[in-house]
Amino acid sequence: MASNEENVVFIGNKPVNSYVLACVTQLNEGADRIVLKARGRAISRAVDVAEVLRRRFMKDLIEIEDIQISTEQIETREGNVSNVSAIEITIRKKN
Amino acid sequence: MASNEENVVFIGNKPVNSYVLACVTQLNEGADRIVLKARGRAISRAVDVAEVLRRRFMKDLIEIEDIQISTEQIETREGNVSNVSAIEITIRKKN
Repeated sequence: MASNEENVVFIGNKPVNSYVLACVTQLNEGADRIVLKARGRAISRAVDVAEVLRRRFMKDLIEIEDIQISTEQIETREGNVSNVSAIEITIRKKN
Repeated sequence: MASNEENVVFIGNKPVNSYVLACVTQLNEGADRIVLKARGRAISRAVDVAEVLRRRFMKDLIEIEDIQISTEQIETREGNVSNVSAIEITIRKKN
């Protein structure tokens, strides 16, 4: 895995620790930066993942670089467009 | 209401629009800045409130100034300490 590559972890409905493990693996394999992406109700879980990483598993090794929120438009099965909030939390290794 | 006062809106389990209305009211009464605070599952709703304000009700009038995430410790009824994620979204009027 290239060291400067941007790694994205999409947060869904799995337990927090499964995403934490995915992040720890990517960081240990050489990623300098990970972007956690979530929409709708999974936004709370993305914050949980970032906080568990920062306070427990990668304590003093990573920091929150940036947090962005946005609105995404999703097409429903009926063809309507629905708005859903989204978050991107960028985590990076400390120097 | 003092113009430079920091106004906090705690996001809980009510519908998104009730918090949006609280924010619009404070901004119209002279607040320059509002901090949305939420914990746990309400984090997603805080993002919804910020996005609805920014994209619909106060379009072009406000911007997201800052987003911070943290972990808070809550004491349960049994006296145990439990960790919960939290978010603070600071919204300000554009100049």
